[in-house]
Formats: sequence, structure tokens, C-alpha cells
Amino acid sequence: MSLPIQATYPDNYAVCYGCGRLNEHGLQIKSFWDAANPDIAICHFQPKRYHTAVPGFAYGGLLASLIDCHATGTAAAAMYRAAGRAPGTEPAFRFVTGTLNVRYEAPTPIDTLLELRATVREIKGRKVIVDVELFAHGQRTVRGEVVVFQLMPDL
Amino acid sequence: MSLPIQATYPDNYAVCYGCGRLNEHGLQIKSFWDAANPDIAICHFQPKRYHTAVPGFAYGGLLASLIDCHATGTAAAAMYRAAGRAPGTEPAFRFVTGTLNVRYEAPTPIDTLLELRATVREIKGRKVIVDVELFAHGQRTVRGEVVVFQLMPDL
Repeated sequence: MSLPIQATYPDNYAVCYGCGRLNEHGLQIKSFWDAANPDIAICHFQPKRYHTAVPGFAYGGLLASLIDCHATGTAAAAMYRAAGRAPGTEPAFRFVTGTLNVRYEAPTPIDTLLELRATVREIKGRKVIVDVELFAHGQRTVRGEVVVFQLMPDL
Repeated sequence: MSLPIQATYPDNYAVCYGCGRLNEHGLQIKSFWDAANPDIAICHFQPKRYHTAVPGFAYGGLLASLIDCHATGTAAAAMYRAAGRAPGTEPAFRFVTGTLNVRYEAPTPIDTLLELRATVREIKGRKVIVDVELFAHGQRTVRGEVVVFQLMPDL
């Protein structure tokens, strides 16, 4: 995929603080399938100086937000793939988060590009379970499990 | 408590994006014991217009951030209380999040003051488990369970 999945969202669903390309105040995260392993979706994010928790480390709420939106985007991309459809074609696959479980395994340095790696564990009807790992300087510091639900087109 | 617990944090731990009073870009949340029920800590937060998920509703990552920092602040306040010490006295009780589990029960409207209510379920050594409920227009829309760990004073 040459475009991030979020670039294919319809305009009225592109306002999300975490991943909306039209939200100028937001994080504007971008998710791509990994060229080396098409079962993994990648997101890179450089925290701002003010995204701090304690000095030197990134804020856990930011990391939870990255995991949430990267998982949602990965679920959408996976559903398009499962349906054999091009990303962004109508009706759009859109998801909301049901549960967001985050485990902070180690402090995450703020001074580096973060990498998130997401895999789809299960697709069952409207429900998708996505596992996300977050790395800083090559070390995994956070793990997330996100259960998302497909919004029906009329919602 | 007339001051929010976050007002008593030492300066070098008051830079958190979620709750640091010195982080001018951050959310600056404030947690108080409920005057009517001293076992509950309250936090009020008005989302900004751009804290949106889908149109009309608040971003889940923001809500997770509020839950995280309100839980951490509640844990600190509870530890001071359990120790019979005034909030802010040295050595400070400071916490980091171990796990953050959030369940989104319903969409959260963005156009209203949100109320978070936190209770300490358990204190066991350095570990504190905090339950948080988030309400909008009087309806609970999100629940969180946060496990936090006390940072030792030399960290």
C-alpha cells in the first residue's frame, strides 16, 4: 500500500484527533502494511517535546492513543484485504474501539522515532482483535490489545 | 483537599502531558477527593473541539489519557492518606502506570463537561489498583482499570 490507510478514510471520518488527516491539532498517525511482512502494519511516530510523562520519557496516554488508532486503522485495512477490495472503496470499513488494554513494560524514551507493529489476531463478524507492540530504540516498551467493532454504514 | 493533588507534585514531576501543571501544551487535569464521599476522587474535563473521534464524540485516546492520569493522581492521594501525611510532603509518592485497561461502553459526547470518578480498589506494597468511571451528561460511557506502581524516591 503506497498510501497510509488513513488517507483513504472518507472526509467525515478523517477528523479523529489520533489519526484524522483533517485534524490539524491532532497526531495524524499513519499506518502502512510492512513491505517485508504483509501481515504486519507499521506506524512511526516522533513524540513532541511536550508529550512527556516524567522527564525524558513519553506520556503513556499518548502511547495508548497511538496503539488505539494504529489498531483501528489496521483493522480497516485488514477488512478491505479480507473482502478483496481496494482501501477506501465504498462502503467504507470504519471501526470504533471496544476495549483498549495497554501494558507498559518499560519506560519509553521520548527522544526517538517510535515504531508500532500491529497484527490482526482475529476477525469475527464485526469484531476484530488487534495486537500492537511499540518499540523505542529497538526495544519493546509497550504492548496493547485492542478490540474494535465495525460501524455499520448507516451509523 | 482544597488543592488538586497534582498541585502538590514536585516541579520535576509536574511536566506530564496529562496532568502536569507546568506543561502548557498538556491537558492539565485536576483530581480532588469528593466532598460528599471521601473514598471517591473526582476529575472534571471539558474536551476541546478538536478532541474528536467521529463527529460529535470525544476521542478514545483522550479518554484513556484522562483515566490514566486521574488514576495515578488518585493513587498518590490515597497513599498520602494511608500514610497519614499531608499531600505534597517529602518524600513524594509518585506513580507510573503498569497496565491501563479501558472499556468503551458507549460513545462519549464531546460537547459537555466530563466527570471521572475514581476509587482505590487495592493497595498492596508499591502497587495500587484504581477503578475509574467516566460520565457524560450523567451517563457512564467508559470504564477503566489502572494498575500503578510507586516509583522509589531515588528513581
